[in-house]
Amino acid sequence: MNEQLLLENIRGVLNRLEETILFALIERAQFKVNSIIYKPGALGEALGGESLSAYLLHETEKLHARMRRYTSPDEHPFYTDLPAPILPILRYDENPLQPNNVNINAEIRRIYEVEIVPLICQEGDDQQYGSSAVCDTNCLQSISRRVHFGKFVAESKFRSDPLRFRPLIGRGDALALEEAITDEEVERNVLDRVERKARTYIQELQPGGAGRIEPAIARKIYSNWIIPLNKKVQVLYLLQRCTG
Amino acid sequence: MNEQLLLENIRGVLNRLEETILFALIERAQFKVNSIIYKPGALGEALGGESLSAYLLHETEKLHARMRRYTSPDEHPFYTDLPAPILPILRYDENPLQPNNVNINAEIRRIYEVEIVPLICQEGDDQQYGSSAVCDTNCLQSISRRVHFGKFVAESKFRSDPLRFRPLIGRGDALALEEAITDEEVERNVLDRVERKARTYIQELQPGGAGRIEPAIARKIYSNWIIPLNKKVQVLYLLQRCTG
Repeated sequence: MNEQLLLENIRGVLNRLEETILFALIERAQFKVNSIIYKPGALGEALGGESLSAYLLHETEKLHARMRRYTSPDEHPFYTDLPAPILPILRYDENPLQPNNVNINAEIRRIYEVEIVPLICQEGDDQQYGSSAVCDTNCLQSISRRVHFGKFVAESKFRSDPLRFRPLIGRGDALALEEAITDEEVERNVLDRVERKARTYIQELQPGGAGRIEPAIARKIYSNWIIPLNKKVQVLYLLQRCTG
Repeated sequence: MNEQLLLENIRGVLNRLEETILFALIERAQFKVNSIIYKPGALGEALGGESLSAYLLHETEKLHARMRRYTSPDEHPFYTDLPAPILPILRYDENPLQPNNVNINAEIRRIYEVEIVPLICQEGDDQQYGSSAVCDTNCLQSISRRVHFGKFVAESKFRSDPLRFRPLIGRGDALALEEAITDEEVERNVLDRVERKARTYIQELQPGGAGRIEPAIARKIYSNWIIPLNKKVQVLYLLQRCTG
């Protein structure tokens, strides 16, 4: 099987992404909620009606698109009006995914702003708008990468047992697909590990200071959102997959 | 004294910046050195003769300048040709620093590319150019912030003992100023703490995987560069300070 589809390799990437996500969340948690940065138009005309957090994400994506970020099969933009790459396209190893248009970034952004930021940041406004918005871009990009990696997971699972998946895809049975891709033991291990990592990292953050993510909160972010959204991507991907 | 100049508050900021820097370095260390991204012009005409790492830093600074990042007295850009802010300027708390033009980012960038990247990254090329360059921007911005925070440290030290500093500044005695601002016990504590933090963080990174920063390497980065550069900023700042 293609190296990118070995479940062991995929799980290595997902494991390492836990650090990227936790570090990004710990950085964001230094600052207060600063809800004004999520309100479209709240910081003046110059942002073209976007919120500051959205504007910075959008401009960053334009820059990264020119650097060919979104030609990689494991990267998914939040915006669709991005410029073409100005760097020569890299020849990636053969893309192991089937053609698909699954992208749930709009949902990720809503959950991040409405659920996750208030969970990790102190209430209120500390005027650190730019710094908070820069952190938002990092958080959103790393969570999006983790969630959409479900496509590789799903493709790997399909290829390891096509006889099981073909009929479920054939009749478009999302519930049965979700059951087929679920491995409760793996999920429990991920949650335990994320909670343990957060416990390790919090040791070094000053008590009473901002920027501490409680281990139970890290676990909750994974159990309520990151794992379910990853599984949603897996199911959506499989529903679009040809059964060949 | 101005709250921003209480040595205790400054040390709290510097302590927290250790996480920001370590996290950024750990992220960069996932990728190989990829020396092509530091070679001006190596990735084609489209980057206007800049290296990829420099281009991405430059474009990011343009974006952040529009978001008024560099109106804050603790932020120092690497480039001088940046656009004006498009957001209304925040009224910062009274800037406690004296007017000065100290900015050693050119030196920071050279040390980062030549010394630090080869120390934390595996040799070679993994084609992760864009990802590496994005990490470079985060590393450089966080190291620059830490180093230039020396201005606040120096101003605080001056105000706590003007009688000692005035004559040294008056006769432009850089060596005596360096001695006056040096606190070896504080430096040793910082080094011990950075090494301990790196030891904590490495626990959770997969053995054999890329992206591990050895505790001795973290200590070395601080002892060889971050602390000496911070002290250099302190001395340069004091040399420009009026003695009033």
